[in-house]
Amino acid sequence: MRIKFYFFGKKSEYLTLEKEYLKRLNFKHQFELIPLSPSGNKDSIIAKKQESESLLSRINTSDYLVAFDERGAKLDSIEYAAVFDQAQDSSRDLVLVMGGAAGLDGSVLERANKVTSFGSMVWTKNLFRLMVLEQTYRAFEIKSGSGFHKI
Amino acid sequence: MRIKFYFFGKKSEYLTLEKEYLKRLNFKHQFELIPLSPSGNKDSIIAKKQESESLLSRINTSDYLVAFDERGAKLDSIEYAAVFDQAQDSSRDLVLVMGGAAGLDGSVLERANKVTSFGSMVWTKNLFRLMVLEQTYRAFEIKSGSGFHKI
Repeated sequence: MRIKFYFFGKKSEYLTLEKEYLKRLNFKHQFELIPLSPSGNKDSIIAKKQESESLLSRINTSDYLVAFDERGAKLDSIEYAAVFDQAQDSSRDLVLVMGGAAGLDGSVLERANKVTSFGSMVWTKNLFRLMVLEQTYRAFEIKSGSGFHKI
Repeated sequence: MRIKFYFFGKKSEYLTLEKEYLKRLNFKHQFELIPLSPSGNKDSIIAKKQESESLLSRINTSDYLVAFDERGAKLDSIEYAAVFDQAQDSSRDLVLVMGGAAGLDGSVLERANKVTSFGSMVWTKNLFRLMVLEQTYRAFEIKSGSGFHKI
């Protein structure tokens, strides 16, 4: 399965751990973690709009888009894994997106096939990115029935 | 404020990041991250019981105990910060505990002043420990009104 994960920022603080998850994910899938340049505009509404345009320009019509946003459905790990089935069943590439400091514009949420949240808490972006990698790896392990996912 | 955070396992994989959060937490508070030896018993019920006894023997009557367990209340970041107020208002030391592979025994949940969950997802223990450190740091920033916590 081909998966692209876009975010705004740099790959620095969590690089060692990210590499570990990327290695595991790439063992069976084609997974790319792609940093996008933050807009830099001080007006958060303009920044959000510019970043969302930059994001949408990279997404193909056939891509299955999953946006991470606090307004999204609060999924558990099994439900998150089921999102991957939906993309896989229709043989579409999966694109994961998280917003920058200002968040995602409504245009991205409208385009998204699934808007999802990881719960009610607010997280530092660098840590949240790592959390997405962990749940994505877990999702594939759940789908393969490997026993990695224990409750 | 004095805080102890007990867990079963080793401080290895996330050491650099943990150190960063511990440094930040210890700037204003006395925060200790304390690894406990896993029981090693193959029977998960016995392991859970042994680990919970080892945990409870380290807790003073006056400690305010917060246990992380999927059966607990799903808090958001503001609600998690409020738990710290409850401990601070009664001038009690705060003790945070997470279980080992087998989880926490009912005896710990009964002793706990607050049983809390970070949402519906299942996490790798090493990552969850880092998530607790981040939310704990965030809780103090929320309480101090520093502006670190943005929604």
